[in-house]
Amino acid sequence: MLMNGTNRKRLWTTFLSAPPGIPRKRWSRDPRSFMHFSIRGGTSPSGAHTEPWTFVVVKDPEVKHRIREIIEEEEEINYTRRMGNRWVTDVKKLRTNWIKEYLDTAPVLILIFKQVHGFVETGKKKVHYYNEISVSISCGLLLAALQNAGLVTVTTTPLNCGPRLRVLLSRPTNEKLLMLLPVGYASKEATVPDLRRKPLEQIMVTV
Amino acid sequence: MLMNGTNRKRLWTTFLSAPPGIPRKRWSRDPRSFMHFSIRGGTSPSGAHTEPWTFVVVKDPEVKHRIREIIEEEEEINYTRRMGNRWVTDVKKLRTNWIKEYLDTAPVLILIFKQVHGFVETGKKKVHYYNEISVSISCGLLLAALQNAGLVTVTTTPLNCGPRLRVLLSRPTNEKLLMLLPVGYASKEATVPDLRRKPLEQIMVTV
Repeated sequence: MLMNGTNRKRLWTTFLSAPPGIPRKRWSRDPRSFMHFSIRGGTSPSGAHTEPWTFVVVKDPEVKHRIREIIEEEEEINYTRRMGNRWVTDVKKLRTNWIKEYLDTAPVLILIFKQVHGFVETGKKKVHYYNEISVSISCGLLLAALQNAGLVTVTTTPLNCGPRLRVLLSRPTNEKLLMLLPVGYASKEATVPDLRRKPLEQIMVTV
Repeated sequence: MLMNGTNRKRLWTTFLSAPPGIPRKRWSRDPRSFMHFSIRGGTSPSGAHTEPWTFVVVKDPEVKHRIREIIEEEEEINYTRRMGNRWVTDVKKLRTNWIKEYLDTAPVLILIFKQVHGFVETGKKKVHYYNEISVSISCGLLLAALQNAGLVTVTTTPLNCGPRLRVLLSRPTNEKLLMLLPVGYASKEATVPDLRRKPLEQIMVTV
């Protein structure tokens, strides 16, 4: 897809404008804000233009809490029994654990599902080429849109929770959970880990 | 990674500012522009903060031409023999074929490699969790940055070309080609396919 013309105009507005007419305190209750963001995710290019994504926007406190329960149950198993020492050591520096309070406190959770295949009109399977890459790119655009609206999030991939969350949210079996983004404004006490990044010469090569 | 504080500031500038001090006609010769964009790609979140990406920026006309030769050879096989009727039919509506003139004419090709694993200081393998998802998100941010600088691109995934392009560009075996972005300004004759997009209610569900 050449990113020009109509698509270019659409994308451009993603990064310059906050959701129009939504005061800061009301945004979480106004469905327009999420339409806004999901449309932006939906402008992403995709393999053979299959648009293999579903954005599930969860605002209901009970559903959020049920999501938290599922994730905490599975993550406790990940940390204590399932994933082994290596994984536990690798994530240790991020000081995460299986208690995920933010799943209750964030006003909104966006669960992004990749459709590993689609259906043609006859009901037969439709191949979704590069569906994981396509949906991940759309998440990148969504992150940019949220960021530029002054919101904060954290990219999470609830490990081994996909099937239970899919059932909870009544998504069909051709959809697999790719990512969960809790979205809101940062609390006044929020701190950010002081992560160093690789220097440019390690990530870029010029030929 | 909480997208706030320093990271937030860094990302923010991605979408509001074109590369500073680079006149339109000179940008393709000025390496700073690519540093600018790659740094933006490099602000992406990644699994366990492993930053598993390499951005190879190709400006040398001979290397671009060699890339074109490899891709056209492999793509001709994809279209005529390797991929079968279904794939050929699925991409037919995009009116692509194996002739890729843009690989010569685009002033710059950015080849993005995912590092399927890294190395710790002892030389042992380091696990790169979710490396494909992480690098694809970074491509989404890179697309946004290019777009907002007024450049155009097209997301391509040169099918079955990865190993030969990796060798051509002297990348190590732990790196696999994820995507190739030809980058430049649109020619005056450029047209954009009039692709319809799924309506919002098909891509977003609110709970």
